[in-house]
Amino acid sequence: MVNPEFEIRPSVLVGDTADISLQRTLTVLRNEGLNPTVAVEYFSNNNGVFSGIKEVKLLLAKILPEVGVEVWAIDEGEKMEKGETILRIKAPYSSFGLYDTAICGTLSSSSNWATAASNCVEVAKGIPIICTGSKYVHPLVSSGLDYSSIVGGCLASSTILGSRLSGLTPSGDMPHSLPLLFGDTSKAMQAFDKHIPVDVPRIALIDTFKDETEESIAVATLLRERLRGVRLDTPSERGGVTPQLVKETRLRLDHAGFKHVEIFVSGGINPDRIVEFVDNDAPVNTFTVGSYIANYTDINFHSEIHEIDGRPVAKRGKLPGINENPKLGQIM
Amino acid sequence: MVNPEFEIRPSVLVGDTADISLQRTLTVLRNEGLNPTVAVEYFSNNNGVFSGIKEVKLLLAKILPEVGVEVWAIDEGEKMEKGETILRIKAPYSSFGLYDTAICGTLSSSSNWATAASNCVEVAKGIPIICTGSKYVHPLVSSGLDYSSIVGGCLASSTILGSRLSGLTPSGDMPHSLPLLFGDTSKAMQAFDKHIPVDVPRIALIDTFKDETEESIAVATLLRERLRGVRLDTPSERGGVTPQLVKETRLRLDHAGFKHVEIFVSGGINPDRIVEFVDNDAPVNTFTVGSYIANYTDINFHSEIHEIDGRPVAKRGKLPGINENPKLGQIM
Amino acid sequence: MVNPEFEIRPSVLVGDTADISLQRTLTVLRNEGLNPTVAVEYFSNNNGVFSGIKEVKLLLAKILPEVGVEVWAIDEGEKMEKGETILRIKAPYSSFGLYDTAICGTLSSSSNWATAASNCVEVAKGIPIICTGSKYVHPLVSSGLDYSSIVGGCLASSTILGSRLSGLTPSGDMPHSLPLLFGDTSKAMQAFDKHIPVDVPRIALIDTFKDETEESIAVATLLRERLRGVRLDTPSERGGVTPQLVKETRLRLDHAGFKHVEIFVSGGINPDRIVEFVDNDAPVNTFTVGSYIANYTDINFHSEIHEIDGRPVAKRGKLPGINENPKLGQIM
Amino acid sequence: MVNPEFEIRPSVLVGDTADISLQRTLTVLRNEGLNPTVAVEYFSNNNGVFSGIKEVKLLLAKILPEVGVEVWAIDEGEKMEKGETILRIKAPYSSFGLYDTAICGTLSSSSNWATAASNCVEVAKGIPIICTGSKYVHPLVSSGLDYSSIVGGCLASSTILGSRLSGLTPSGDMPHSLPLLFGDTSKAMQAFDKHIPVDVPRIALIDTFKDETEESIAVATLLRERLRGVRLDTPSERGGVTPQLVKETRLRLDHAGFKHVEIFVSGGINPDRIVEFVDNDAPVNTFTVGSYIANYTDINFHSEIHEIDGRPVAKRGKLPGINENPKLGQIM
Amino acid sequence: MVNPEFEIRPSVLVGDTADISLQRTLTVLRNEGLNPTVAVEYFSNNNGVFSGIKEVKLLLAKILPEVGVEVWAIDEGEKMEKGETILRIKAPYSSFGLYDTAICGTLSSSSNWATAASNCVEVAKGIPIICTGSKYVHPLVSSGLDYSSIVGGCLASSTILGSRLSGLTPSGDMPHSLPLLFGDTSKAMQAFDKHIPVDVPRIALIDTFKDETEESIAVATLLRERLRGVRLDTPSERGGVTPQLVKETRLRLDHAGFKHVEIFVSGGINPDRIVEFVDNDAPVNTFTVGSYIANYTDINFHSEIHEIDGRPVAKRGKLPGINENPKLGQIM
Amino acid sequence: MVNPEFEIRPSVLVGDTADISLQRTLTVLRNEGLNPTVAVEYFSNNNGVFSGIKEVKLLLAKILPEVGVEVWAIDEGEKMEKGETILRIKAPYSSFGLYDTAICGTLSSSSNWATAASNCVEVAKGIPIICTGSKYVHPLVSSGLDYSSIVGGCLASSTILGSRLSGLTPSGDMPHSLPLLFGDTSKAMQAFDKHIPVDVPRIALIDTFKDETEESIAVATLLRERLRGVRLDTPSERGGVTPQLVKETRLRLDHAGFKHVEIFVSGGINPDRIVEFVDNDAPVNTFTVGSYIANYTDINFHSEIHEIDGRPVAKRGKLPGINENPKLGQIM
Repeated sequence: MVNPEFEIRPSVLVGDTADISLQRTLTVLRNEGLNPTVAVEYFSNNNGVFSGIKEVKLLLAKILPEVGVEVWAIDEGEKMEKGETILRIKAPYSSFGLYDTAICGTLSSSSNWATAASNCVEVAKGIPIICTGSKYVHPLVSSGLDYSSIVGGCLASSTILGSRLSGLTPSGDMPHSLPLLFGDTSKAMQAFDKHIPVDVPRIALIDTFKDETEESIAVATLLRERLRGVRLDTPSERGGVTPQLVKETRLRLDHAGFKHVEIFVSGGINPDRIVEFVDNDAPVNTFTVGSYIANYTDINFHSEIHEIDGRPVAKRGKLPGINENPKLGQIM
Repeated sequence: MVNPEFEIRPSVLVGDTADISLQRTLTVLRNEGLNPTVAVEYFSNNNGVFSGIKEVKLLLAKILPEVGVEVWAIDEGEKMEKGETILRIKAPYSSFGLYDTAICGTLSSSSNWATAASNCVEVAKGIPIICTGSKYVHPLVSSGLDYSSIVGGCLASSTILGSRLSGLTPSGDMPHSLPLLFGDTSKAMQAFDKHIPVDVPRIALIDTFKDETEESIAVATLLRERLRGVRLDTPSERGGVTPQLVKETRLRLDHAGFKHVEIFVSGGINPDRIVEFVDNDAPVNTFTVGSYIANYTDINFHSEIHEIDGRPVAKRGKLPGINENPKLGQIM
Repeated sequence: MVNPEFEIRPSVLVGDTADISLQRTLTVLRNEGLNPTVAVEYFSNNNGVFSGIKEVKLLLAKILPEVGVEVWAIDEGEKMEKGETILRIKAPYSSFGLYDTAICGTLSSSSNWATAASNCVEVAKGIPIICTGSKYVHPLVSSGLDYSSIVGGCLASSTILGSRLSGLTPSGDMPHSLPLLFGDTSKAMQAFDKHIPVDVPRIALIDTFKDETEESIAVATLLRERLRGVRLDTPSERGGVTPQLVKETRLRLDHAGFKHVEIFVSGGINPDRIVEFVDNDAPVNTFTVGSYIANYTDINFHSEIHEIDGRPVAKRGKLPGINENPKLGQIM
Repeated sequence: MVNPEFEIRPSVLVGDTADISLQRTLTVLRNEGLNPTVAVEYFSNNNGVFSGIKEVKLLLAKILPEVGVEVWAIDEGEKMEKGETILRIKAPYSSFGLYDTAICGTLSSSSNWATAASNCVEVAKGIPIICTGSKYVHPLVSSGLDYSSIVGGCLASSTILGSRLSGLTPSGDMPHSLPLLFGDTSKAMQAFDKHIPVDVPRIALIDTFKDETEESIAVATLLRERLRGVRLDTPSERGGVTPQLVKETRLRLDHAGFKHVEIFVSGGINPDRIVEFVDNDAPVNTFTVGSYIANYTDINFHSEIHEIDGRPVAKRGKLPGINENPKLGQIM
Repeated sequence: MVNPEFEIRPSVLVGDTADISLQRTLTVLRNEGLNPTVAVEYFSNNNGVFSGIKEVKLLLAKILPEVGVEVWAIDEGEKMEKGETILRIKAPYSSFGLYDTAICGTLSSSSNWATAASNCVEVAKGIPIICTGSKYVHPLVSSGLDYSSIVGGCLASSTILGSRLSGLTPSGDMPHSLPLLFGDTSKAMQAFDKHIPVDVPRIALIDTFKDETEESIAVATLLRERLRGVRLDTPSERGGVTPQLVKETRLRLDHAGFKHVEIFVSGGINPDRIVEFVDNDAPVNTFTVGSYIANYTDINFHSEIHEIDGRPVAKRGKLPGINENPKLGQIM
Repeated sequence: MVNPEFEIRPSVLVGDTADISLQRTLTVLRNEGLNPTVAVEYFSNNNGVFSGIKEVKLLLAKILPEVGVEVWAIDEGEKMEKGETILRIKAPYSSFGLYDTAICGTLSSSSNWATAASNCVEVAKGIPIICTGSKYVHPLVSSGLDYSSIVGGCLASSTILGSRLSGLTPSGDMPHSLPLLFGDTSKAMQAFDKHIPVDVPRIALIDTFKDETEESIAVATLLRERLRGVRLDTPSERGGVTPQLVKETRLRLDHAGFKHVEIFVSGGINPDRIVEFVDNDAPVNTFTVGSYIANYTDINFHSEIHEIDGRPVAKRGKLPGINENPKLGQIM
């Protein structure tokens, strides 16, 4: 079943977000009475994790005729290789030519986010990843970012809308504002504990005023068993979070009797930094990743006509005819 | 006057696109009766061109109280330096704390696009740049991309909605589909010329079937004075567009009597490649740039509380107190 | 049997091409009545394929006395290692001292060409190589270049004189001049087919006027079964020949029913580029290599006296006495 | 007046050294009755010093018709830039098409040698350069090497035939064989002094048996005023010749009263090593350069038809029509 | 006047610390009755600052005869260049030959330390440098290290003995042990203030337990005007000391009313790091440098005989005779 | 048994070589009546070979109380890893706090020398190494250098005092001064042979006046069986000692009948250069190494308090509590 949350907006459906050249093409074809059935194939320019097809399918369902149409695609979340066909639409050109911009754009954004998330998950050796990239993208697409990060393997994401698309509970502890406004991390945490529903994990952000290890002990002493974890988010001005800092925090918490308190790590986390923590056996319980996932842009998609009314064709420089790919399944 | 086209969607206003930790923070503060007036400052992590403030101002107008509020910002399109304050909001925290995600996200996406466009414009030595990046981003933000590319100095952009935000006419010629569907570039161009309003410039994409210089001459011979230009979009499989190809096309067009036909260049264009054309005196009339602008992600924004009820504060690692910046002007 | 085509010119025999210091040395020795029997050994400064000994042997046969002489060498075409003795002449010094320049020069030029050819053959995985380097060297040595390229493993070479030295038929299709003078590749090829003996393979150079794939189909359509192949020689201004271009040409020829037409590739070919084609499974039938073979200069030879009248000697810095090398065979 | 020493050999004139494709081209044209007047231009692929035109002119004088012909060229020894026209032949194609291989080959070999010589001269700051490269090339072209080295600025060269082409006296001292055969450098030098005409400078090679400074003093003590210089040719096994060694030899010779004895330096000399000596103020009197000049291969020439019967043409990828170059002078 | 503190130990005077080959040389010479007057020159293998001559002069005064002796040297603390003569001893060989090891060793160690100190001073733009390198060298030479660091430009050093050699008061605040033993930095500082003479500056080491800025304010609040400064020594596990940390500490101290409190910086300081602070305008008041000065080993000295009984000599590879150097002054 | 030769000087015992801050710390503690038992651990900042503990133990024996004390250390000469505890002292702080400078300094200098020696030994594949580094360090520590070089695996060292510490006979042949003073290497060697006890090996330094191979033969011819070896010390001005030179010298000695004469190699020897000789099978009998061992400074030591009266503690950034290391053995 298609997730009902994705919404195809009217501006997309009427083509206001399409490249103007596509509209002119349709005008010309209509006036010439040309509307052959074409096979258009879509390709990624890089290896990655495919995402966005669920949303694209929603769009296609609204625009394609009911008969005489075939759509083949690889699965949401499947690995894709540079240059292989990951989507093929066989239909009268005029029924979908206008939506090339939207299809490519949706797949490109979504697959970038899923691929970046997957890059993190692959090196984390089982340590969970939470996506907190929403502040790095326009709010209109932050839910899509959250959705695709889950497709790529993240455990949770941080916005309500994005989590809803994935059928998950959003994840998040507190910004630096909260301790700053209270003037003291422990007081802020005490208030959080008092007013937030008990099913929300108590995770203290502990670098606002004092050294991380000192503040960790202070908060743990206050909340004791109710404290789920502490989040290290040391700014670069204090050297960032390092494997050594995680180890020291773990050891000092253990010595103080707080073995149950988990350590969350954030701040510029990416696959290289995850590897650094993993290779140094730093006892991280969860990573939260923001800009790396939100800003990933190695993946672009483009389409090519490879068949017109059954004849193999291609523009100069491309190989004419359908490209077989056993991973493809018919979705329409 | 604020451009009326930007629309602040309900999901943003109710906070569904916000980081969940912000909502929890507001809950805690409300229950504790804490709502000081704070000065929050926003910083970019890199130099660039500022964009998105027009849209952010629309949002702030809907959420901030009418009195007791100050908003300072630098101008849309102004150069910004890493680490300088480019936006300062002084208001009761609870009135705008929830919108940090949306504000940072809007400014980040918009300023990335404007900066990338500006990077191209700066090296093009007066040769116009057209933005055709819409197929590289999700359709919900393609109009924002187009708008910010104009802020960064582009002459035009390719979607109807994006162009409307800038008060411009969208720009675009034809995709490879058109000649492919006609089976011949000249026939396609002839049909285009017949059916498309005369105020749309006739620009032929001329690498679909034949060598670029051969097809240029053929199309020019057909349309003569009605042909505004040819677009070179040679694929990498044929060596891409090079300064030499532009020079040869120019010379062969001139020899054939078509000095009026302009040369448009597209395909993986970025500042380095523009410099290559400019340094080699290639007679390009217009560049069209897509993925470079759409995929630019060097710019991120974040906010910091620097004052609470008039007291200078800052989290550990930051300099407490307001940062003066003479570029700031009061916008609310 | 020694190939009779090599000619030792009088200027070499009288010593006019020798280093003047050698002539003065002979004058001094003659006046002092000094003429010991010496063992002179020759060394290469790099690994490679040995060539030129057939020509050197012709020279030695004209100058060495009939008795009291020994000449040892490795075989024409044999692999040689840096620093091993590849030629040893044991004879009265005055009988051959003057020819050191000619011997070193002949071996150096010949072995450079053979080594370069071998470097190409070794990476081509069985795809034949044709040497077309004659235009990069002085015409007096182009036949030697052709001969040594065959020694190094080439299938054929391009000059009449050079091919005669190897007992082969010269290979060559057409320069760009032919289509240019006809103003059309197909017409030029038709004329070639009409006037050139049927045993000369019809290979069309197909990048003079049009895109390679278009011109390939045009020529094949005209000559059909009589067309042996097409030669891709795309200039760097059009991206050079790439594996992708070979694949596309192959596919389009196959689709058009010309599976018998072979693909020849030329233009700056060297081992690195051959590897690129081979690694990408480009269906090349033959490579033609010019400047890489003609311009190879990694190999130099020099000689050292290692024995005088049976006594081991050597200049300072060298190891005195004969160097044994099991690869050496006595040739005189 | 053209130097009478260059000889155009019959095998070149009958086309036996030409690329076979040129002969086939002429056959086709003759049978089709095609023989337009063409303008063929020649280009170098790199900057350098032009050499070989004197020899090429001798060839053209033998083959071109007496009327209806124009030949333009830059001067022997003139600087040339990559891509500029350095030779233009305007004549009926069939009169000279066959000689493209010989013309390109002669110019390439000659200009490589002249360019390499010039590269040395340019950095030597007035210290003379002698070319001794003959042993690195086939004896059939060693005279051409010597000739072009003089064109490039060398003071002298080492073969009789090569020096004759330049109207100079050949230069050379002695090989290591001479001292080795005498068993003692001083005895060898004494014999040289006794038997060689007095107008030949006495230059002793002084590293065969002993340390260079010791042997220098020994030889100078023996020949005194009759000794013109010593040549340092230290092998790499003893560290090669260094600026320090030259300084020490100079100082020890001066202390011993031999200020008139010059120091010649040889052994792997190239522009980089010359710069090292010059920058360290090493008191070198003359450099002798061999393999660097003989093995230089950065320069290749090729030709293109740019006009047929007055019409500008060019193969795809080239700019049609004559290229003006103010350096060109009409030579026929 | 020579500083009386340097002590030449008996083991040095009897030659027990000399290379055994020197003793054997003296034995041979004595038995052969050979004892010429020689001029021995000393050279550094690198540019640097000369130090150690005061101590060497004390040694020479004990061993050289009173007449027939000349000693020339450049000044303690003078810049020296690679390869120039910085010390020349002219005396009977047997009187000082044994001490070559001691002379070279003393000059090498001393000049390394002075050079390293000078390298720091040169880039610090007037910010004072204190040497605290004693723990990186054997205690027998730590006073020499301190002495030479002052010769190289340091303001003070950390050991009693070393400071006495320079006529200065030793400088030092406290190790991490002091706060650790008190369990609290403020209490430790209070005790320090109570028990240490008032002329010793109160400088608090402030990173033992808490964040540096927090602890700085705490200590300053306690000692107020009596606090001279705080020392930042952040370990690499917390990101080391950075320019940003210095700026933030300065700003927070100023906001708290402690503008008089100076900032000392230590921990892996070297010229590169000093430049980083200076270039970023970090308000450092003093740097303390340890391992960089103590471990510097770019400077080595060696001696050569250049004259024997007035005759210029030199071993092979060296320039015979005295080397004039206008910087030399006669010291004995 | 502890070697009696190490002497702990009074200036060390009274703390004159200690960092002044340690003395002030003791003053404060005494006045406050604070003297807890602490566990101090010592760490190296790099991997290496541990040396100096014998000398440190002598110091501790003089200062620590007889009861209530534990000292654990790894063995003299044992491999140590970066960051592992290599020495732990558990005693009342005031009994040994003052000696931190001396302990760290002694261990640092000694372990640097032992590590450098070991680096040479490890790559020499059984060829012995002799340490001749005394002239690169201050004479007060040259015996320590010699001692630690033996700890690191050297066969012998060059000073009397240093050799005594190791219970070995010092090793050394002659400086360049000896042949220079005799004016002839052979005469010098003859005198050496005459006057030096027969149990000292005759090793001739053979590059002072003539080429090495010539002088080797001359000296061997003179001393015959009494000559143990020749030392090659070619200066960089003559190319330094190379594997080729060793091979040539070996071959020429063998040809002359001196197969028993060994070859010693010196002059800038370090592990990289040893590898070069070993990889090229150069027949070296012994290497002598000077500046590489004397100037090695990769190893530094520092101490940290990890326990106070049984409580685990550590400064911020360090892991509190004792670090177990199975290599440690109790030495007091």
